[in-house]
Amino acid sequence: MGPVITLLTDYGLEDGYVAACHGVILRLAPEARVIDVCHLVPSGDVRRGAAILAQTIPYIPAGVHIGAVDPAAGARRPVAVEAGGRVFVGPDNGLLSWAVQAGGGATAAYEIVNDEFFVQPVSPTFPGRDVYSPVAAQLCTGRKVSELGPEIDPARLVSLPAPTSLVRDGSVEGEVVSVDRYGNTQLSIAAGDLHSLGVRVGDILQVHLGRRHLSMPYRESYSAVAPGELVAFTDSAGLIAIAVNNGDAAQRLGLPPGARVRLRPTA
Amino acid sequence: MGPVITLLTDYGLEDGYVAACHGVILRLAPEARVIDVCHLVPSGDVRRGAAILAQTIPYIPAGVHIGAVDPAAGARRPVAVEAGGRVFVGPDNGLLSWAVQAGGGATAAYEIVNDEFFVQPVSPTFPGRDVYSPVAAQLCTGRKVSELGPEIDPARLVSLPAPTSLVRDGSVEGEVVSVDRYGNTQLSIAAGDLHSLGVRVGDILQVHLGRRHLSMPYRESYSAVAPGELVAFTDSAGLIAIAVNNGDAAQRLGLPPGARVRLRPTA
Amino acid sequence: MGPVITLLTDYGLEDGYVAACHGVILRLAPEARVIDVCHLVPSGDVRRGAAILAQTIPYIPAGVHIGAVDPAAGARRPVAVEAGGRVFVGPDNGLLSWAVQAGGGATAAYEIVNDEFFVQPVSPTFPGRDVYSPVAAQLCTGRKVSELGPEIDPARLVSLPAPTSLVRDGSVEGEVVSVDRYGNTQLSIAAGDLHSLGVRVGDILQVHLGRRHLSMPYRESYSAVAPGELVAFTDSAGLIAIAVNNGDAAQRLGLPPGARVRLRPTA
Repeated sequence: MGPVITLLTDYGLEDGYVAACHGVILRLAPEARVIDVCHLVPSGDVRRGAAILAQTIPYIPAGVHIGAVDPAAGARRPVAVEAGGRVFVGPDNGLLSWAVQAGGGATAAYEIVNDEFFVQPVSPTFPGRDVYSPVAAQLCTGRKVSELGPEIDPARLVSLPAPTSLVRDGSVEGEVVSVDRYGNTQLSIAAGDLHSLGVRVGDILQVHLGRRHLSMPYRESYSAVAPGELVAFTDSAGLIAIAVNNGDAAQRLGLPPGARVRLRPTA
Repeated sequence: MGPVITLLTDYGLEDGYVAACHGVILRLAPEARVIDVCHLVPSGDVRRGAAILAQTIPYIPAGVHIGAVDPAAGARRPVAVEAGGRVFVGPDNGLLSWAVQAGGGATAAYEIVNDEFFVQPVSPTFPGRDVYSPVAAQLCTGRKVSELGPEIDPARLVSLPAPTSLVRDGSVEGEVVSVDRYGNTQLSIAAGDLHSLGVRVGDILQVHLGRRHLSMPYRESYSAVAPGELVAFTDSAGLIAIAVNNGDAAQRLGLPPGARVRLRPTA
Repeated sequence: MGPVITLLTDYGLEDGYVAACHGVILRLAPEARVIDVCHLVPSGDVRRGAAILAQTIPYIPAGVHIGAVDPAAGARRPVAVEAGGRVFVGPDNGLLSWAVQAGGGATAAYEIVNDEFFVQPVSPTFPGRDVYSPVAAQLCTGRKVSELGPEIDPARLVSLPAPTSLVRDGSVEGEVVSVDRYGNTQLSIAAGDLHSLGVRVGDILQVHLGRRHLSMPYRESYSAVAPGELVAFTDSAGLIAIAVNNGDAAQRLGLPPGARVRLRPTA
């Protein structure tokens, strides 16, 4: 198998931006296999990009993983971070941090300054094409990450505050991490934390959203309840999600990313 | 040429779901060529998914063809169906049935139960990643379809009722199968059925939509009429379609999928 | 490296149209590497397609480059145009013209009439699948462009009028070429033309939009100004763009493609 390069960006698909990255990679690393992780990260939404990256990368063979979501394009230093046998390349704005953490934490990090790796002239607004892509390609063809620039202390990398989850007083509190295409709201609450309270599949959950209070079944899947019904389940990332079967839970409940949610077993 | 795997889903492109499937496939079948058939099937729209699959697969080399559109994710048994030298993998909910039929009908079918093929732990809500993708990949690397589980009678597979088309009394009646990006409405009426009534390119067609009655030219292409004009033509799948040149026929005529349409020659 | 084929269309991603093209190519040229340049060109928008193609192709290795955006599908003759070591395949409606020009101009051109290259039967409404894709694939596997049909005079190819830019009386006038996902408006004014007026990064620009007059900083990137502020910068294609940091300049200023813009230095 050729080396693997993945791309996550907020470039959208209406332009040729993604294709330009593919072209730069193909020119420099013709044997590389490129997987598009996602290009529809909402513009500049670093947290959403970080969540998608961290939840998807475990299913992709180790390689060089580009993240390009940066509302301050050109202002953040580009970095390459080694973690779990992978190399992550992108801006030092926290975008890579959850995936790095999921990979066991950074074992080394480098600031990318060696412009012999870059596509010239470098556009200040398109590091994905001119910096990250050629760097990733050349890392796949024998160049060393240590050639990119000075080593930096991984502890000094920008790290996004992880969505919190707290078990106390017989309940677990967290927040909405993301809302997917179907309106399913993924919480920062791991299935294990909920189970530690004695909740089992088939139970009725008490759900507190600020001052609102609801109860809903905790089931294996959203399809275990009737269409239109609310349900909690363990999603494909191992986190608790709230859904409406054949419906849009985020819209129904008014739950944007960041909203606080508390779950407890029925007494 | 490496083996071919195709993916049709309703996962959308805003998340990393599709990439996770690609990653699983790449890990298990690094030589496979993966073609994305479509990931924007409307959520849970099994009929639309079935139509896209059946109309696209004939243009793709034989391989393993995944379909993952299932409003009852986790509730439908996963199956592998052999037809026309291809293997179709997906839920037994009819999604695969029109493509199987277009391939000459199922020659064998298996329920997928052998969990040594699966990505563990299997998420009840993501069989595309944990069941269909690893199964498809391993079928490409030498595993036999008969290893997946017990053989089942192809006649007992769930089959979607095909859109009907009926020639009688000098007219042909059918329904809207799908509406594409341009608003072109594809009917369930094959060009051959219309031609059997004596209609030829260049004629004026009489079109009955419930109680409404219209006439429009039957031409080679929508571009054969002036911008804004209605036209019927034989589309790229060999079916009659109604379009507005540079316009949206579905919107103009209020024709959703399933709407009844009757065509007859001008007396 | 295998031969390279690229695809730019207005087919959208809701259907299997793009996959059918990939399938045809894979069947005929299994070694080819296919890059999707863009499939969300607005329906029939030849100018937008031409701009994306011309700005993206320079970053992609030389190959066969398909363009399929044609409001008069089936009415325009298909052509193959050689330029800069590449072959462009598509309708003779100007779609290819800016990319051809960016590649140094056409060195040869052929009308595509040899139907032994085509997928049969040829649908009048889907030349991308039945004509351009099989032609491109076979050009990658040893067939000669001269086999496609009669040579034609490149000077007789349809050419889109390029967006104009005129330096006079101490100002430079141009038009909006395109608006990207972020609402950044790309002008037809090259950075060099602006710099020829003495404007330097860090200056304040005077911007005339019809009767409206604004001033805004000319900076390295949109991120050099505060969120919500207007800014002009040299974009990743070397053209002047007007943006709002973290905002939508096209919407704020009401600037559609084609709108006239005049820039001058602050006196």
